[in-house]
Amino acid sequence: MRTIEWRDGTVVTLDQTKLPHETVFLKLKSVLEVAEAIKTMKIRGAPLLGAAAAFALALVAYNSEAKEKRELINELVKAGEILKRTRPTAVNLFWAIDRILNSARSFSEEDQDMAVFVVEEAQKIADEDAAANRLIGKYGAELLHDGDVILTHCNAGALATVDYGTALGVIRAAWEQGKKIKVIATETRPKLQGARLTVYELKRDGIPVTLVTDNMVGYIMYKGLVNRVMVGADIIVRDAVINKIGTYTIAVLAKEHDVPFYVAAPKSTFDLAQVSANVVIEERRPEEVTYIGSERITLPGVNVLNPAFDITPLECVTAIICENGVLQRKDFVEFKANL
Amino acid sequence: MRTIEWRDGTVVTLDQTKLPHETVFLKLKSVLEVAEAIKTMKIRGAPLLGAAAAFALALVAYNSEAKEKRELINELVKAGEILKRTRPTAVNLFWAIDRILNSARSFSEEDQDMAVFVVEEAQKIADEDAAANRLIGKYGAELLHDGDVILTHCNAGALATVDYGTALGVIRAAWEQGKKIKVIATETRPKLQGARLTVYELKRDGIPVTLVTDNMVGYIMYKGLVNRVMVGADIIVRDAVINKIGTYTIAVLAKEHDVPFYVAAPKSTFDLAQVSANVVIEERRPEEVTYIGSERITLPGVNVLNPAFDITPLECVTAIICENGVLQRKDFVEFKANL
Repeated sequence: MRTIEWRDGTVVTLDQTKLPHETVFLKLKSVLEVAEAIKTMKIRGAPLLGAAAAFALALVAYNSEAKEKRELINELVKAGEILKRTRPTAVNLFWAIDRILNSARSFSEEDQDMAVFVVEEAQKIADEDAAANRLIGKYGAELLHDGDVILTHCNAGALATVDYGTALGVIRAAWEQGKKIKVIATETRPKLQGARLTVYELKRDGIPVTLVTDNMVGYIMYKGLVNRVMVGADIIVRDAVINKIGTYTIAVLAKEHDVPFYVAAPKSTFDLAQVSANVVIEERRPEEVTYIGSERITLPGVNVLNPAFDITPLECVTAIICENGVLQRKDFVEFKANL
Repeated sequence: MRTIEWRDGTVVTLDQTKLPHETVFLKLKSVLEVAEAIKTMKIRGAPLLGAAAAFALALVAYNSEAKEKRELINELVKAGEILKRTRPTAVNLFWAIDRILNSARSFSEEDQDMAVFVVEEAQKIADEDAAANRLIGKYGAELLHDGDVILTHCNAGALATVDYGTALGVIRAAWEQGKKIKVIATETRPKLQGARLTVYELKRDGIPVTLVTDNMVGYIMYKGLVNRVMVGADIIVRDAVINKIGTYTIAVLAKEHDVPFYVAAPKSTFDLAQVSANVVIEERRPEEVTYIGSERITLPGVNVLNPAFDITPLECVTAIICENGVLQRKDFVEFKANL
């Protein structure tokens, strides 16, 4: 199945905090339930957050008792506000909400039932993401060759999207083409998406994967054990790629060792009106750092930093792969023209 | 008390795997007990390993029933072999064993009881380490100033040495001089020495400390939140500093951001006859990565890398602080002449 699905008034998705130990499905019936699942990262991954927000608004429309368009739009706007407060850095979320609201505003009541229309628009967002990932895979796989060892960070896989994945979609596509590649996955503290989710996806598909701690990346590059980096993105702005904390550290090491650094993301992740200095980097709860599972790993009350993302300047990025194709570094200055 | 002490035929030290949650003292009575404590990292930290190995040989001499010098030396050589197999990269261990053996070989039986002599030599190694750390602190503190925020990795503190610490000794000395400094400690996966030991030592002394995950270092430097790096070393060879895994990653980031990168270590950590290409990097059990405490963080059976150390070329090092003073990068070419 897809990572998220609409089933007659219910949003069905996996609880990603339980993986890889347990496969628990969430059956969400209200915007508040979706918002809570996003906040606690049961639902996570930039493209998936877009689809989840769209389906949350579909739930509002589906359950609404509004008598007229204006009333339903007010409900959707309010629900959108709730969703926007869950993850401040997540551009796909904002993009999907705005897209649903704009569609709803331009909807003509004569044509169709508006609730049906909103549900269909949300479904379209999900379908487009799945299709975009297949295209990203197709274009990105051209960059990978027999014998490549690809380092990836966090989880930019099927679980981070509606289906197939961005960075892992590229890896998956190359593997499906029969290319003999291997993957090194960083565990990705504090939430361990690499150890939990990326290892799970790759093992399921039979793609060879080796797990390392985040601080081993320097050593691995020094020893020449990796020759490509492939990561996803949470936002791509005019001057930078903003992605899971730790990405920038890997990008600097890749630059030092002349290892190509690729970013795979759908266009819904791009916000080229924005520059990195204006992006709010979400700071999450200290307990994500001080606890691992139920184990406290340090003294109580210690001061902690917990930024969820970091900023990789475009100078560190070799190419960005989106559903339009591969944008090489020289094309970045013409970002807008190309999209 | 000191981190390790000789008490009438018993080596008393802390079980560092239990910190910071529990303070458990080990009372070791044989070389096998010491070797086991080193292997399982109950005893860890380069300079401390030297003292522990010395005291382990003191236990052999103390308990020996050898009738003559040659016989006791054979026992010490055998015990040394056991100790040398515990941690292949730990130069202080090799250094301390060789020093005790050489002293024992040159011992003249007319002067004194040989067991007493070996115990005294081990005690001297411990005392010299404590004294060296104080000197390292004194010289290194000159490099730190009011307002500095110092990033440190792993634990190069009192717990890694006989007393006071190397990197944390420098920080401690600056703090005792009244300098207004702050520390950022990386948690240091897989064994979390930063989260468990460095945070514990600094909080105990009232020195402000903030804990981060290893992969946040890039972000912290990008944001200008740190202006010095201070780490210890496991071996300093002719062309590189070999230290806890993750050190090289930090060094590359420090270079990229023009942040001075300092290494603090006693001369017992130097092995200038050696080059980094010939140093065996210890590869430890995969379970150190796949488990945190009793929690498994990934699928069973996943392939894992777990090198305990990495290699930082001297080009990335701004200065090395030892008990002789501060060696600036320009002096490194004359390493031997200066020591």
